Amino acid sequence: MAVKQLKNYAGGHWVTAPKEGDVLYNAITGEPIYTASSEGLNFGEMMQYARRVGGPALRKMTFHERGRMLKALAMYLMERKEYFYEISALTGATRADSWIDIEGGIGNLFANASLRRQFPDERFYVDGDAVNLSKSGQFIGHHIMVPKEGVAIHINAFNFPVWGMLEKVAVNLLAGVPGIVKPATLTSFVTEAVFEEIIKSNILPEGALQLICGSARGIIDYVENGDVVTFTGSASTGQQLKSNPRLTSEAVPFNLEADSLNCCVLGPDVKPGMPEFDIFIKEVTREITVKAGQKCTAIRRVIVPADRVEDVQIALGKRLQQTTIGDPKVEGVRMGPLAGISQRNEVREKVQQLSKSQDIVIGDIEHFEVVGADKEKGAFLPPLVFFNNDPFVKTDVHNIEAFGPVTTIMPYNDIDDAIALAKMGKGSLVCSMVTADDDIAKDFVLGAASMHGRILILNSDCAKESTGHGSPMPMLIHGGPGRAGGGEEMGGKRGVLHYMQRTAIQGSPTTISRITNVYQQGGKQTESDVHPFRKYFEDLQIGDTEITAKHTVTEADITNFANVSGDNFYAHMDATSLDGTIFTGRVAHGYFILSKAAGLFVNAKKGPVLLNYGIDEARFTKPVYPGATIGVKLTVKEKVDQEKRSEDDIAKGIVKWLVEVYDETNETVAIATILTMVKKRNQN
Amino acid sequence: MAVKQLKNYAGGHWVTAPKEGDVLYNAITGEPIYTASSEGLNFGEMMQYARRVGGPALRKMTFHERGRMLKALAMYLMERKEYFYEISALTGATRADSWIDIEGGIGNLFANASLRRQFPDERFYVDGDAVNLSKSGQFIGHHIMVPKEGVAIHINAFNFPVWGMLEKVAVNLLAGVPGIVKPATLTSFVTEAVFEEIIKSNILPEGALQLICGSARGIIDYVENGDVVTFTGSASTGQQLKSNPRLTSEAVPFNLEADSLNCCVLGPDVKPGMPEFDIFIKEVTREITVKAGQKCTAIRRVIVPADRVEDVQIALGKRLQQTTIGDPKVEGVRMGPLAGISQRNEVREKVQQLSKSQDIVIGDIEHFEVVGADKEKGAFLPPLVFFNNDPFVKTDVHNIEAFGPVTTIMPYNDIDDAIALAKMGKGSLVCSMVTADDDIAKDFVLGAASMHGRILILNSDCAKESTGHGSPMPMLIHGGPGRAGGGEEMGGKRGVLHYMQRTAIQGSPTTISRITNVYQQGGKQTESDVHPFRKYFEDLQIGDTEITAKHTVTEADITNFANVSGDNFYAHMDATSLDGTIFTGRVAHGYFILSKAAGLFVNAKKGPVLLNYGIDEARFTKPVYPGATIGVKLTVKEKVDQEKRSEDDIAKGIVKWLVEVYDETNETVAIATILTMVKKRNQN
Repeated sequence: MAVKQLKNYAGGHWVTAPKEGDVLYNAITGEPIYTASSEGLNFGEMMQYARRVGGPALRKMTFHERGRMLKALAMYLMERKEYFYEISALTGATRADSWIDIEGGIGNLFANASLRRQFPDERFYVDGDAVNLSKSGQFIGHHIMVPKEGVAIHINAFNFPVWGMLEKVAVNLLAGVPGIVKPATLTSFVTEAVFEEIIKSNILPEGALQLICGSARGIIDYVENGDVVTFTGSASTGQQLKSNPRLTSEAVPFNLEADSLNCCVLGPDVKPGMPEFDIFIKEVTREITVKAGQKCTAIRRVIVPADRVEDVQIALGKRLQQTTIGDPKVEGVRMGPLAGISQRNEVREKVQQLSKSQDIVIGDIEHFEVVGADKEKGAFLPPLVFFNNDPFVKTDVHNIEAFGPVTTIMPYNDIDDAIALAKMGKGSLVCSMVTADDDIAKDFVLGAASMHGRILILNSDCAKESTGHGSPMPMLIHGGPGRAGGGEEMGGKRGVLHYMQRTAIQGSPTTISRITNVYQQGGKQTESDVHPFRKYFEDLQIGDTEITAKHTVTEADITNFANVSGDNFYAHMDATSLDGTIFTGRVAHGYFILSKAAGLFVNAKKGPVLLNYGIDEARFTKPVYPGATIGVKLTVKEKVDQEKRSEDDIAKGIVKWLVEVYDETNETVAIATILTMVKKRNQN
Repeated sequence: MAVKQLKNYAGGHWVTAPKEGDVLYNAITGEPIYTASSEGLNFGEMMQYARRVGGPALRKMTFHERGRMLKALAMYLMERKEYFYEISALTGATRADSWIDIEGGIGNLFANASLRRQFPDERFYVDGDAVNLSKSGQFIGHHIMVPKEGVAIHINAFNFPVWGMLEKVAVNLLAGVPGIVKPATLTSFVTEAVFEEIIKSNILPEGALQLICGSARGIIDYVENGDVVTFTGSASTGQQLKSNPRLTSEAVPFNLEADSLNCCVLGPDVKPGMPEFDIFIKEVTREITVKAGQKCTAIRRVIVPADRVEDVQIALGKRLQQTTIGDPKVEGVRMGPLAGISQRNEVREKVQQLSKSQDIVIGDIEHFEVVGADKEKGAFLPPLVFFNNDPFVKTDVHNIEAFGPVTTIMPYNDIDDAIALAKMGKGSLVCSMVTADDDIAKDFVLGAASMHGRILILNSDCAKESTGHGSPMPMLIHGGPGRAGGGEEMGGKRGVLHYMQRTAIQGSPTTISRITNVYQQGGKQTESDVHPFRKYFEDLQIGDTEITAKHTVTEADITNFANVSGDNFYAHMDATSLDGTIFTGRVAHGYFILSKAAGLFVNAKKGPVLLNYGIDEARFTKPVYPGATIGVKLTVKEKVDQEKRSEDDIAKGIVKWLVEVYDETNETVAIATILTMVKKRNQN
């Protein structure tokens, strides 16, 4: 294969540097395959372009539009995955390794596309609940969030050239913020290949994404208020970047996700022969060998009960013996080389440092077999397992990370010891425990959580479906405290909100209803002659209200309701049993009040309302006795657009209504939010 | 008054420095009144003491216990408020100024005490919703949060010596994290007086709080993973502290809340004579004069329609003329001195800088009257209002802050101009707009939100109850982007969670139920011979389940339910109208399904269940037609303890139940969470 120069994508164009730059190598053969350089790029201009062109274009779209854009992009890339597998193989990845990177990455686009349903079909997001700030309720507070008007700079690690890009850009794009991707140069050729397809797809608006394959040194000097920087990689590089004073003076958040000394704990209850013992061995083996151990989440510390050390060592040794190392193209090869010769050298050095306080008990760094490739030209290493007999004293194991197929077994005496050892990593992305005892799991989780971003509990119930110790999930946080960088801004809705500004808003309920497009209690209620059940989805306005006729509750109501429901609860049916209760007589069923409210507010004739979808937050606030007269105010609270699932699906949306049931003294007896499905006037 | 040396509180003892330190002065008379020094304190030891003694003591308590502790402390301090007013007067504060600081601060303790109700009565918090991660649902994810195991360092500003301390420690104490308070030395004598009462009260556990009145230079060098630092004050000092590499290497969050160039906008719709015009003039006047303008939220930029500039200038001038300046002890004085001579000199310097591009139109920095005090010995200044005729070109006004009774009027042409000018502050804590038009309000808020931490919309509906432009509220975020420091970690639940570690947990639903104490769908359901309605609050276990008898739905059920509720909606009552709907025949009412479910699961006889409290998240997932047979699984999902409101209140709690209604094909037709109030066995 000829050496090809990688391109950068800046200001809406592919840009090739005037000179060749760093040389990138085939990890298996050691041959040069690409060069990468960012010479001639103006980072400041790239960022201005993103802010000037990409930001406004993305902010014009709603969350739902941006979500559908991500889905289209995911489908487009998935069709081209085999091409990406070909290129990914040059990094030394097995098919399974590449699957995590490529399909895992595209899966992130799908997951974030689906996340749009947790956001309104608006350009802003309403966060949390309103807060009353006054006696009469005419002054309230709330929070809205709008996209930051800057650019996201993503500086990524070499081990996941595709996933690393996609897991991050999915989030800033859904939030409405443009991004600039800087993959680690070592494997940037895989990123470039995917990025080229993204641009070809023409699915993203102009300015939404740019790419720097060569060095991005100095880019942080250009950040401005509104930007967001993320970094995944080594703690030392991350900390150096984070110390840039420009980040502080412009108050730009810097999300640092660094490698950490993650651990896996064997529960004190687990003995050889139990399914959990095999689950443990399998999980540890997998984390040593997948991506040749080059994962920031890999298990570096294997914490086992002192009297199980031998069992674990034997079982692990057996498993690892079966790991064939070599060129992943060769049938039967389970583990490829590291991503490059310098990576291998660094791991060797760290192994040497670790060897000063502990011994290798499985594997031989000098003598191992490689299939289908030259052992020295490719960046090969065998799985290596240390044993540390005194981990509270010999503490290098908690501080030195060999970023390859390397781990250390260490003993513990009781659960408090295990928790203490887990926390000696001083902040990890993840830890796991294998136990069949949920009480042990609870103690461990509550004891160890303060130092971990994620804790996985494996047992025979869940192991089969488990996504594994090493895999961050798009809807859960990814990032840990301390050494892991302190980040917890990734994952789910929380991740999207990280790219937005949260602003408290204060004013009258009518003003806040208008701003948020959600009816706030106490806001203006607009009655009209047309019942709101007769209006189509598009025509309903937030605040439209129906004030119903009234109904005087009778003993017969209660008895009839008990008969039809079968609910003969004593408070409703037995006036002689109410001593010591809060009730002064037979009380109407809460469900009757809600049902009767529906009887009062429903417009029965066929119309745009298709069905009753559900109830949220119903509260029965005052007992209703026979003789009380109730009425209902039904107010349009919120409208949630629904996407058509197919061409001939009915065009419709969910309408949330505030139901206020009050009695003859004007006191609220019940309040609820009910949901109906309402047809659109326009069925196209 | 004799000069007294302030004490520090470190390691559980009051510590007086061996030598006198900085001299603190009476702001009105210029006389020396206190000295402050931190000589001899070992900051590293203080922090270790907090982590070793205070942290574990606080973490042993639940959120509810810590909340009640805050309430007790608030009541204790409120009884001693007149003593605090006396000392506060020495800072030059009027009674109204001191009210904000003292009672506002104690109000923060009350507000955070009440916030306990949004947390479980546990030592951990369960965050958000569970996430399903598998096909069969036997592997799920969730998030829990536990207190950080470090110490909160609060470095506060001189303008709010009481509020500044209490608004912050209320939050870290509720979260279960100890704190060290470093008030600005200038006014630290007020903080010390309140702190002394806190210690005397004996309400907090040992190690929960410590105090440094003198300099805390170098304290950041001792932070460790798990600590949290907050800073309120000038941007330059804040940025310098934030650049400490130790913060990055230990991944310690640094919350920076800096002064900003906040603005108030007069809506384009508001004309003199409208109530909104007077509201505007009153709000601006108040923000200039309260605390002599020494508030990080004060209005520095007054943005008005070009053709209203004159009206505003005249009206403001009239109002400000009535502001009597002098010793607040003298009857009629509305504005006291600044907090010190150096503050006054700094404001004078900034006024000079601003004068280069704009002119003073109200007030005279040299000539003004002072009542009851020596104009030069006290730190007095008059209200000063500039006019800037070209604020897009003469931009000093958007960058230079005179931290005193100083503001600038500037014109705008249309709403986009007003938004652009507001954003030229490059990140503010707050801005406000006075308008009677909610559409204008909406445009302004959505346009300006990305650069503001809080936006207040004032009109005649809410002005009377408004808490004002200048007042951050404990349940809303306080902090803004960019120049304001980038913080948004204060306020409400979000503020408490800032002192906690969020950890993703993964495992089987049964394991996650056990860890969180909340039943997760798919988890183990435990049936017994005793109906759960017959069990007291204490005896109910998460996962306890009643599987009910079944019921075959009939046409008569539907008709009877329509009769008793009055709900004759066509889909239930008219089989001939179902063309084009999703229904294939008359469908049972959703409310009937819920009511019938209750009929099936309720145990009617008098017992521990006191009442039906409400319904959360009910969803009707499948139409139920006559002939379908439904059954219910009722499972204890969550238990929420309730505090007794009085001695003879019934001891009880709220039990949340998962209601799963399924049909003869085992498909779920409805799902809901219902809430009942359940008596405790132990009534003491």
